[in-house]
Amino acid sequence: MSQRKVGVWLVGAWGGVATTVVVGLMALRRNLSDTTGLVTSLPPFQPLDLVEWDQLVIGGHEIRDTDCATEARQLLKASHVFSPELLQSLQADLDAVNANVRPGTLVNVGPTIANLAGSKALAFQGESAGEAVTRLSDDLADFQKRHQLDQVIVVNVSSTEPPVDPAIVELTWEAIEQQLAGKGASGLPASTIYAIAAFRNRFPYVNFTPSIGSDLPALNEYALARKVAHVGRDGKTGETLMKAVLAPMFAARNLKVMSWVGHNIFGNLDGRVLDDPVNKANKVRSKDHLLTEILGYKPQTLVSIEYIESMGDWKTAWDHIHFQGFLGTPMVLQFIWQGCDSLLAAPLVIDLIRLSEREARRGGVGVMSHLASFFKSPMGSDEPAFALQFENLKQWVAKVAAEG
Amino acid sequence: MSQRKVGVWLVGAWGGVATTVVVGLMALRRNLSDTTGLVTSLPPFQPLDLVEWDQLVIGGHEIRDTDCATEARQLLKASHVFSPELLQSLQADLDAVNANVRPGTLVNVGPTIANLAGSKALAFQGESAGEAVTRLSDDLADFQKRHQLDQVIVVNVSSTEPPVDPAIVELTWEAIEQQLAGKGASGLPASTIYAIAAFRNRFPYVNFTPSIGSDLPALNEYALARKVAHVGRDGKTGETLMKAVLAPMFAARNLKVMSWVGHNIFGNLDGRVLDDPVNKANKVRSKDHLLTEILGYKPQTLVSIEYIESMGDWKTAWDHIHFQGFLGTPMVLQFIWQGCDSLLAAPLVIDLIRLSEREARRGGVGVMSHLASFFKSPMGSDEPAFALQFENLKQWVAKVAAEG
Amino acid sequence: MSQRKVGVWLVGAWGGVATTVVVGLMALRRNLSDTTGLVTSLPPFQPLDLVEWDQLVIGGHEIRDTDCATEARQLLKASHVFSPELLQSLQADLDAVNANVRPGTLVNVGPTIANLAGSKALAFQGESAGEAVTRLSDDLADFQKRHQLDQVIVVNVSSTEPPVDPAIVELTWEAIEQQLAGKGASGLPASTIYAIAAFRNRFPYVNFTPSIGSDLPALNEYALARKVAHVGRDGKTGETLMKAVLAPMFAARNLKVMSWVGHNIFGNLDGRVLDDPVNKANKVRSKDHLLTEILGYKPQTLVSIEYIESMGDWKTAWDHIHFQGFLGTPMVLQFIWQGCDSLLAAPLVIDLIRLSEREARRGGVGVMSHLASFFKSPMGSDEPAFALQFENLKQWVAKVAAEG
Amino acid sequence: MSQRKVGVWLVGAWGGVATTVVVGLMALRRNLSDTTGLVTSLPPFQPLDLVEWDQLVIGGHEIRDTDCATEARQLLKASHVFSPELLQSLQADLDAVNANVRPGTLVNVGPTIANLAGSKALAFQGESAGEAVTRLSDDLADFQKRHQLDQVIVVNVSSTEPPVDPAIVELTWEAIEQQLAGKGASGLPASTIYAIAAFRNRFPYVNFTPSIGSDLPALNEYALARKVAHVGRDGKTGETLMKAVLAPMFAARNLKVMSWVGHNIFGNLDGRVLDDPVNKANKVRSKDHLLTEILGYKPQTLVSIEYIESMGDWKTAWDHIHFQGFLGTPMVLQFIWQGCDSLLAAPLVIDLIRLSEREARRGGVGVMSHLASFFKSPMGSDEPAFALQFENLKQWVAKVAAEG
Repeated sequence: MSQRKVGVWLVGAWGGVATTVVVGLMALRRNLSDTTGLVTSLPPFQPLDLVEWDQLVIGGHEIRDTDCATEARQLLKASHVFSPELLQSLQADLDAVNANVRPGTLVNVGPTIANLAGSKALAFQGESAGEAVTRLSDDLADFQKRHQLDQVIVVNVSSTEPPVDPAIVELTWEAIEQQLAGKGASGLPASTIYAIAAFRNRFPYVNFTPSIGSDLPALNEYALARKVAHVGRDGKTGETLMKAVLAPMFAARNLKVMSWVGHNIFGNLDGRVLDDPVNKANKVRSKDHLLTEILGYKPQTLVSIEYIESMGDWKTAWDHIHFQGFLGTPMVLQFIWQGCDSLLAAPLVIDLIRLSEREARRGGVGVMSHLASFFKSPMGSDEPAFALQFENLKQWVAKVAAEG
Repeated sequence: MSQRKVGVWLVGAWGGVATTVVVGLMALRRNLSDTTGLVTSLPPFQPLDLVEWDQLVIGGHEIRDTDCATEARQLLKASHVFSPELLQSLQADLDAVNANVRPGTLVNVGPTIANLAGSKALAFQGESAGEAVTRLSDDLADFQKRHQLDQVIVVNVSSTEPPVDPAIVELTWEAIEQQLAGKGASGLPASTIYAIAAFRNRFPYVNFTPSIGSDLPALNEYALARKVAHVGRDGKTGETLMKAVLAPMFAARNLKVMSWVGHNIFGNLDGRVLDDPVNKANKVRSKDHLLTEILGYKPQTLVSIEYIESMGDWKTAWDHIHFQGFLGTPMVLQFIWQGCDSLLAAPLVIDLIRLSEREARRGGVGVMSHLASFFKSPMGSDEPAFALQFENLKQWVAKVAAEG
Repeated sequence: MSQRKVGVWLVGAWGGVATTVVVGLMALRRNLSDTTGLVTSLPPFQPLDLVEWDQLVIGGHEIRDTDCATEARQLLKASHVFSPELLQSLQADLDAVNANVRPGTLVNVGPTIANLAGSKALAFQGESAGEAVTRLSDDLADFQKRHQLDQVIVVNVSSTEPPVDPAIVELTWEAIEQQLAGKGASGLPASTIYAIAAFRNRFPYVNFTPSIGSDLPALNEYALARKVAHVGRDGKTGETLMKAVLAPMFAARNLKVMSWVGHNIFGNLDGRVLDDPVNKANKVRSKDHLLTEILGYKPQTLVSIEYIESMGDWKTAWDHIHFQGFLGTPMVLQFIWQGCDSLLAAPLVIDLIRLSEREARRGGVGVMSHLASFFKSPMGSDEPAFALQFENLKQWVAKVAAEG
Repeated sequence: MSQRKVGVWLVGAWGGVATTVVVGLMALRRNLSDTTGLVTSLPPFQPLDLVEWDQLVIGGHEIRDTDCATEARQLLKASHVFSPELLQSLQADLDAVNANVRPGTLVNVGPTIANLAGSKALAFQGESAGEAVTRLSDDLADFQKRHQLDQVIVVNVSSTEPPVDPAIVELTWEAIEQQLAGKGASGLPASTIYAIAAFRNRFPYVNFTPSIGSDLPALNEYALARKVAHVGRDGKTGETLMKAVLAPMFAARNLKVMSWVGHNIFGNLDGRVLDDPVNKANKVRSKDHLLTEILGYKPQTLVSIEYIESMGDWKTAWDHIHFQGFLGTPMVLQFIWQGCDSLLAAPLVIDLIRLSEREARRGGVGVMSHLASFFKSPMGSDEPAFALQFENLKQWVAKVAAEG
């Protein structure tokens, strides 16, 4: 399939995760990095004929005024990731991406995110939800046309939005269409607007953030109508990955988790946005629910996410798990996770791009529930244990490989 | 099946694990404890008609001069486990067990274990391997007869022996039989002698220790000939359980483990025996091999087990996992496990007794490979990931439940 | 000085710390415990002729309806401290203390503490500050008289109050006296009212809590007028002790602390009171200020205190210190403190009783600034480093010893 | 004193610590680094008129064949320290140092260190101790002469030697002189030979390693005769610094340390040398003794140092301190230190150079016991607590400042 050309459209194109995706893809293309961290580079995925690095063209939406190389150097400086040599080698590649970046929308992103907006995004301040869908959708269509792309995968890697009015889940697609048609106020968050723009172009949409994105009945209705695949939410990169791995152990051993406390500290832009309690609420919810699902009862839980500037992109999580063993004996497991957020997230984003493109190519539509292992709040899946989620993914791989 | 009576024969009957098994079973029988920590009390196991607490009669072999209640109080004092009220309530029950305890054998246990022997076991010092098999086997038969038991499950929970001469794996059962018949020296370790004594009586044998026990081709040959089930080795209770849970996560995410360092400190009798470097070698080997099996490559590993008297039965493990993420970024996961060894082990021993009795009742013979999730070095299984081992167990449960 | 009899008056007499003080003093008196944890049992303090265990008589104020032995058993059950045998041996001693416990005051304790009040304390609900001073003062005088005590030391070990109106520090003693004389509203918190009651009787007052107590210019004015000694605030038992020990190391090595994050979890009554954000604010302030004092600059800091019920009286603190070394190199120190709060606090309370009695005996009046090493926010001292605070104490010891 | 020129002679000139000293001094000279990590840059040291960066000339002895810039780049690559830009800016400075590096001696360095030797050092293989003294001494004299230096400070930052025959401490200086005069075998380790060479030139000698160096009665005799100052041993940079800070806290609070376990992992050249159990013995001894000195009793201790290649120059220490509080309650403090060894050591080496030069300038001779706070096994000091050692240093500072 070397003839196919596939677009990667990053919503939040100059954020830490997107920047790392770009640096990573360029490094892979130029053979300056091995494939460590990429799930789709594991042996079981090799028969799938997944899209290769040199088939991908990158673009995206962004609300801040900056550029790719600047953000990459900032990551290097604040977080001691990448090597300066690598960034030097890729300078031209990174600069080339900037040409494909268009102003994002500020519709319903909340004040903390809106405060980050630069002049280009502010030019569209006050646009209605319907106007935003049209504009963003046109950007996508234009991207496809200019680069003659067979497919475009839209991935949301932007900052976490505030929670939306829960009533939104009651809306039908028809109701949303009416909202978009009118000039009146709409509660649709930006993440959902990007999803609609993607579906309008029949492009798959992947939501790597806790924002609601396409995780609405109405959106799935529209996705099925447009015959596109989608999935989300919230990439499972660190502490929650650990929970999805460790909680099943306690369950399988009938050890009673009395309390599970998790404190997260980090210092990147995401952290600054999450320092707003409203935005944080969305994230904490996403990190907390799976314990009850796995254990079958609700232990006392505490999840904190704190912005500590000196940490840069390094997230340190301390988890204290107080559990009861045989004859009422209290015991403790603690773990300390010291990982670099963007570097953990970026390869998973690349995996999701490759796997979504493959699913779309074979005609898959609707929620890609077989991708649950990638998400904290996986759409279309009620299996919260990581090991079994990964088994499900391997079964999909076997099925697709068998299709030839 | 309320009419069945089942014997539990504990090799190392007054050790920490056995003492906790006895206290636990008595507490369960008198409804003084809930079933936390017992895998077989989880919902999926309920259709299996497993043996209940009041059907079990306990006996065992032991080389030290002490008694059950004394050891239980010692655990309370040194390790702050059990409640004094509980031990008081169970005093008569614990005393009753002592009458079923017979002197163990010192054949090939190595000097560190031999040094623990009391007068009763020393009375048999110098017995040959063949004499030991006969004596121990008679003890088992006598136990069954006196208590009119339908079945006896023999479980090795004694101290870790030194490694044996690797040539032992080449022996056929016929060769071992000749060794046992003669008066000459035999390299057979005590753990294997107990297994032979069990098989001679057609009793299942479970090896909860790193000692070799029945994990020899010749022993399996004999088990098949006697139509008995057996399994081992080395209960997976703490740090290695964590490895079997965490390593698959690194593998599934293609994160490269560069080094995995694990330091274990604890202060029980097991720890004192493992302070002998020869005995320790057996244990470390058992804790170390699975990383390579799960990851598919060998990271630098270090496992230390140190005897720190003040810790009592509490084992603290600190593991430092240094791994490489995307674009060569080094990251770290550390965990600290603070568990009480005997309290973690005892419920698993009870589970293994119930599951072995059930397998024997349905006519199972040979290695019970479906019990791999309980062991560090599971016999008959090449699946090292805990989650998948547990799925295998659940499949066995479904099969047995379907048999009715 | 074996003829002297000294009263110990515990404000919060049935709380965890007070209960442990009582159990500890009784255990020491009956020779059922060694002196581990008691600073005043160290060799340098031996020449001081400090008051001995059998010279002490215990009483106190309390707002809850319970009793000493019940609270002690509750600590045993929830937190696995004390041995049941110890409590059994001391049952009569503990019961005897109850007779000396009088209802505390609810004046300005805030709603969270007021909610804990039992019938005896509620009988005085609505009393004015002046009435409370009189009543509490009479209780103290009566205690002295009934037991023919040479001295009484009043120690505040009650729950943390909400912060007071900062304007209170502007008041003169005369202004406070007028408040007490009138029937009108007064902002004086209960902790200060107890201090006034103590001073009125010329009894030393020790404030082991973050509440304001005698830490007011007006109170010191009154203490000097009454010629009594006093000191506080907030016993330095765990995480903050560690800060007072570690921060000077970073300062002495010119290592730049970029951020210091401390998360505390625990599950005792104190924790439940601190779960009220208003009360917590007082505590967090007390734990946080010393870093700036020691380092000479303000790193980013975060202190959280969370109520996790399963922890009982065990406080676990995780501190993450992110510091910069030579050539801008970021490094990390983390510590995990797993201590039992009441068991850490109680011996220090006993030390403070003995040292305050000694200072009073030698005629000391006003703030006992040489006791700074015992407090998070030491009155009368601007030395925040623990090691130097302790040197100051040793200098006082040498001086007093020289006085003979 | 801007006219003085001072030589810095690094024994182990291309090792990690020396390389960092060189990079650091050059960065300071060119104003490319602030003074974080330098004790002598703290305010109290400012009146001392210490030697400035641009007054220092660097040379040294080394047994390996490499060069300064190569080693610096290796540190950057393996340990993510320094910035590439910094090394680029300093390339010429680093290259200039190489010209002043002379072949070190292999006399009694033990096989593990000898295996590291390159062709230049091997050219002197088999030289006697006396020949070595003469050769090394001439190198120093030549260095002084070529650069017209007012003073030269010799600092041992080479790999840890195996322990020496304890009988060596019985030798008089006369006996050593006879050894040096003869051609016969001598047990004098290389670290001592360098010290003698320094003293012969009347140059101060600082031993930053656990090797014996000048810590012999005979050597001090010689130092006094030559009127030179010296000090050692073993820079206190990480885990042992923590012990010297934390153990006094346990002592001051009369908390009984039952066991103190410390596991250290790291992956630099020092680690590879310490992987030889003989060399490691010297280091472990140096890290272990101070607990007994501070606590006044010997808790069970365990110190391990393990070479884990992936760690590079980053040393992670996990310490588990099991202590007993009031009423026999066991509690735990754990800390995890993640520091970069060379970056912690280098500024202290620079401090010691400045402070030794200052002491020599004011006529100090013999052991500089006021520098104890810098060493794990400080010569001439019986104060093991860090805070008090630092007070001693500040007193010396005050005294010298008062001298004007």
